[in-house]
Amino acid sequence: MINLEFSELVKKRRSIHFYTDEPVTEDELNYILEAARWAPSAGNVQPTRFIVVRKEETRQKVWKSTTKIKGVNPQNFILKAPVHIIVLTEPTAYKGRQSQVKSELFSIQDSSAAIMNLLLAVTDLGMGACWVGLFNQESLREDLQIPSYLIPVAIIPVGHTQSKEKPRKRKPLKDIVFYETM
Amino acid sequence: MINLEFSELVKKRRSIHFYTDEPVTEDELNYILEAARWAPSAGNVQPTRFIVVRKEETRQKVWKSTTKIKGVNPQNFILKAPVHIIVLTEPTAYKGRQSQVKSELFSIQDSSAAIMNLLLAVTDLGMGACWVGLFNQESLREDLQIPSYLIPVAIIPVGHTQSKEKPRKRKPLKDIVFYETM
Repeated sequence: MINLEFSELVKKRRSIHFYTDEPVTEDELNYILEAARWAPSAGNVQPTRFIVVRKEETRQKVWKSTTKIKGVNPQNFILKAPVHIIVLTEPTAYKGRQSQVKSELFSIQDSSAAIMNLLLAVTDLGMGACWVGLFNQESLREDLQIPSYLIPVAIIPVGHTQSKEKPRKRKPLKDIVFYETM
Repeated sequence: MINLEFSELVKKRRSIHFYTDEPVTEDELNYILEAARWAPSAGNVQPTRFIVVRKEETRQKVWKSTTKIKGVNPQNFILKAPVHIIVLTEPTAYKGRQSQVKSELFSIQDSSAAIMNLLLAVTDLGMGACWVGLFNQESLREDLQIPSYLIPVAIIPVGHTQSKEKPRKRKPLKDIVFYETM
């Protein structure tokens, strides 16, 4: 645990591309998934699901899904991470709710919020992760037997790290915040 | 500042529907927006923009946009919040990047992650907020002069609160986490 204030934790978090061989424990994994579990969702429908992938053979398949996008470089670094967390969302979860009018949009939003909590929890443990959004959905779906009612949202490689990658620059608030109207 | 560990902070955060008259200071607002600013984005393109609305007249217009959705109840509680933060996203920000192949999806994901950081920062200050996703986009766009290249993602009422609303129940991890495959 790195014991940072929240305001420091959000600045400390960054996409990590280098992982050590140190295994990820069950306790660490639970800590990370528990944070994701508490993310908000429209009408509290909780559309997010997670697949935890540890086996070398399955991680190879997950990596393979990132190599099958036209015009996009394969993301080889994810193979080094001992755990891949696949984040899925279920748009049909909103059925019968007011929020069903935007069920696909809301399911993506809600699962993205869960991913943010997950990434902060990883950082809080002093570990590393990366939000990988570019992958071949159909290839991943087939290899991990993901049913059609779930949409794969992201692949999150997770591991211990000694990476010294610095946080990337951000636009200053004055360029991204407006007052009263645009 | 409530000084909770991160794991407690994520459980403490909930949608708040009751706000006091206590004004939101510039420092508080900066703290909240600063956390949102540090959220990750695909290729660090930072597509998220914020409009801070404080004037009664403008907040009335924001509220009005939530009353114009067929089959959805108006969300009157947002009028009580002294500040509304309107979160916008810019799908064209990915132009020329690998990630542009999914620019609309990624812009929604990235801005949702920023909202999660924002909500946690509000909680960290002991204040309250709510993620309002159901509103009439065109009405809000017109009233706040939002240009067509930006998509309004959410209305976030923010304020001080004495709300005793308890966090809502979550599904247990065993119901939402799978191993290796589905």
